[in-house]
Amino acid sequence: MALQPPATTDIAKAFSAFYYQAFDSNRNQLLSLYRDLSTLSWEGEQFIGANNIVAKLVGLPFQRVVHKVATVDAQPANPSAPTLIVLVTGQLLIDDETNPQHFSETFQLVQEGTNFWIYNSIFRLNYG
Amino acid sequence: MALQPPATTDIAKAFSAFYYQAFDSNRNQLLSLYRDLSTLSWEGEQFIGANNIVAKLVGLPFQRVVHKVATVDAQPANPSAPTLIVLVTGQLLIDDETNPQHFSETFQLVQEGTNFWIYNSIFRLNYG
Repeated sequence: MALQPPATTDIAKAFSAFYYQAFDSNRNQLLSLYRDLSTLSWEGEQFIGANNIVAKLVGLPFQRVVHKVATVDAQPANPSAPTLIVLVTGQLLIDDETNPQHFSETFQLVQEGTNFWIYNSIFRLNYG
Repeated sequence: MALQPPATTDIAKAFSAFYYQAFDSNRNQLLSLYRDLSTLSWEGEQFIGANNIVAKLVGLPFQRVVHKVATVDAQPANPSAPTLIVLVTGQLLIDDETNPQHFSETFQLVQEGTNFWIYNSIFRLNYG
């Protein structure tokens, strides 16, 4: 059964809040959100499987990061399955930098019981 | 059967080139890319069905627009269906403006024969 608005938006906002809070406090916590089937594209580089994805995220060369989410949009991704497509835009601030960078991130979330896991994720900085 | 890289990236790049060329020259041409099941989120407003979507796009309050694509990433969106998730980032220039605006757009594309149509699309400007 497809997920319908407004549930889609509520789920996507709750997910984004949880995801970036975990990302900014301890990236190892993100492991539970990925599965073997998950794919991450990070600035053009692709990683498949929860362990490879989280190893990439944990290894990113900064100590501190703060994400500030600006927009979260979501739509049902499949007429016959509980999956969502989400686009998040916002800004992030790394270590001692004072100029935030814009980012965009797309997720496909899959419902499993009362939780969601990440099937697809694509991250890009928006350079100017 | 899921689409696999590098086909995913090639398809997504060809699609993006076609989509923004059509958008920038005559938005009515986009009608063939949407179906009744398609959804567009445009700056937070949602439109369902090809006619509603294209009416929104054709009615946007500018005469000229030029999209300049910076990045295109794609992943198979389903292990058992020929669908793709795509994230496009880039800049666009409207009418006589001289400062380009950053945009991000997510698509889910569905293969039908040798063509693809748009199941999901989410558009956002990246303000800063």
